[in-house]
Amino acid sequence: MKRMSDYRDMVESEIKSLRLPADRFPGLYKPIYYSLENGGKRLRPILLLMVCDAFGGDPQEAAAAALGIEMFHNFTLLHDDVMDNSALRRGKETVVAKWGINTAILSGDTMLTLASEYMAKVPDDKLRRVLDVFNRTAIGVYEGQQLDMEFENRTDVSLDEYLNMIRLKTSVLLGGACEIGAILGGASDEEARVLYRYGEALGVAFQIQDDYLDIYGDAATFGKPIGSDVLNNKKTFLTLSTLSRGDADASALKSAMSLPAGDLKVRTVRNIFTAAEMPRVCRKAWAEWSGRAIKSLADTSLGKESVAALKGLVEKLIDRKK
Amino acid sequence: MKRMSDYRDMVESEIKSLRLPADRFPGLYKPIYYSLENGGKRLRPILLLMVCDAFGGDPQEAAAAALGIEMFHNFTLLHDDVMDNSALRRGKETVVAKWGINTAILSGDTMLTLASEYMAKVPDDKLRRVLDVFNRTAIGVYEGQQLDMEFENRTDVSLDEYLNMIRLKTSVLLGGACEIGAILGGASDEEARVLYRYGEALGVAFQIQDDYLDIYGDAATFGKPIGSDVLNNKKTFLTLSTLSRGDADASALKSAMSLPAGDLKVRTVRNIFTAAEMPRVCRKAWAEWSGRAIKSLADTSLGKESVAALKGLVEKLIDRKK
Repeated sequence: MKRMSDYRDMVESEIKSLRLPADRFPGLYKPIYYSLENGGKRLRPILLLMVCDAFGGDPQEAAAAALGIEMFHNFTLLHDDVMDNSALRRGKETVVAKWGINTAILSGDTMLTLASEYMAKVPDDKLRRVLDVFNRTAIGVYEGQQLDMEFENRTDVSLDEYLNMIRLKTSVLLGGACEIGAILGGASDEEARVLYRYGEALGVAFQIQDDYLDIYGDAATFGKPIGSDVLNNKKTFLTLSTLSRGDADASALKSAMSLPAGDLKVRTVRNIFTAAEMPRVCRKAWAEWSGRAIKSLADTSLGKESVAALKGLVEKLIDRKK
Repeated sequence: MKRMSDYRDMVESEIKSLRLPADRFPGLYKPIYYSLENGGKRLRPILLLMVCDAFGGDPQEAAAAALGIEMFHNFTLLHDDVMDNSALRRGKETVVAKWGINTAILSGDTMLTLASEYMAKVPDDKLRRVLDVFNRTAIGVYEGQQLDMEFENRTDVSLDEYLNMIRLKTSVLLGGACEIGAILGGASDEEARVLYRYGEALGVAFQIQDDYLDIYGDAATFGKPIGSDVLNNKKTFLTLSTLSRGDADASALKSAMSLPAGDLKVRTVRNIFTAAEMPRVCRKAWAEWSGRAIKSLADTSLGKESVAALKGLVEKLIDRKK
């Protein structure tokens, strides 16, 4: 097994080797380069390569599919930023803020087709299985985004509904990346499904962490303004967990949500979260979901070293600051 | 060979057999059903089935791919209608007008992935070839839409540039439908490329016809308000051909374009087009492009009956009223 940074380097060099006709269609392809070169953790392609490697496959042969999954992820960001009207992403202007709605839509569409194209650069005998997972995964992500938008207009979203939404919107893609990596590494369908569950559980832990960092993170490290979920009254693991207590903290949060957007609102909500012990609740949830991810690995034929690497990745992720 | 109406029935029954989870995600899938059930000529899937049949394939086995190409086409309409801010399509409200931008984007994305999914329901030994054509085709369509949007802000678009734009935006997909149909019918790569050129030439004739009907068509039959291109000062084959004359008609058209939107503008422009002999110019262009389409068929091993059917389709299309 290689180190995380080696997989990351492979992804970066795959992105650098992209040759899109930005000279002939700058309006279409420059935003795509901008989006892909805008940093990002490359978590999904790293997972794909790492799992492929863990099953004894050659990660170099999975590099195009890894680019495909990163391209897909970035396509969803372009379109989500239109739907959520977001101006900042990873500390930089979003494509929709920089070039407008039409560009974000059309360059996004192009990225989705490019993602399919790269995803198809796998050996013939694995093509159908990989595409089945990829397409099923994509549909799950759209269904998750649909729920996310619907939740904005509802006041009665339960914590379980929220967990199902983030499972679809975030975890399914992490699961899909792992499942595709497993297939490319030579895993059986059954083992590939286990790796899907590993990625899915990891994804839930990851999203809860994201919700936590929105309010407890450091702006410079996190890459987005702290408290943006709070300012937008977005439902998160922390708000729904606090509301589900039905106590004084829950009432206080309800009142705080009607405060005007501003520093005072962010500080007030953070104090309520702290009073409601959200840091402890989040840590418990991370432990639970990352525990599930790690436990699932026992249902595979993976060797000790591979299991340790995949376990290490879980631990690294829930310890992240951005 | 079957009749056009038989292929059409196959497409309609394929659409009717779709089982999308509209009960669980109505906000996502109802607009997809609405879009697919909104009539339409089904030209692209009919072409795919017909060409497959012409090469001796079983059109029933190509039915899923035909649905895929129709799904793709409808996805482009959903997103184009956002970008063009269109309220009407085939005489009915567009998805963006009825449900808003976010729905049009997300249901459209879902349709693109569903299109890939249906397109992949072809025999294993043809999967890669079909997907290669499908993805290449999709990229061409996006590049065409990009040019179309850029042309809106330019005053110096030449007729050749326009023809290249509609080749990408419209013809490439008709070509792709034919090429995929040929592959599924058992054609060699070379013959499949010939059928691509048949569809591409047909597509240019088709788009010129569309431009013609916008101003000379009958509103009730055409399904959109007559003169909408004129009211939006859209560049079309007729405007660019008239402007390229550089004579009094060209000057008159330039002045007419600054008239306020309304019946007077449509009537004035129609009179200028008629004075500039645009009906004759359009007929000449149809004859040229449909001639190219028909001539290309000579470079194939297709039998007499198949050639006659594909020739008949060209003639039927340039004779259409909607």
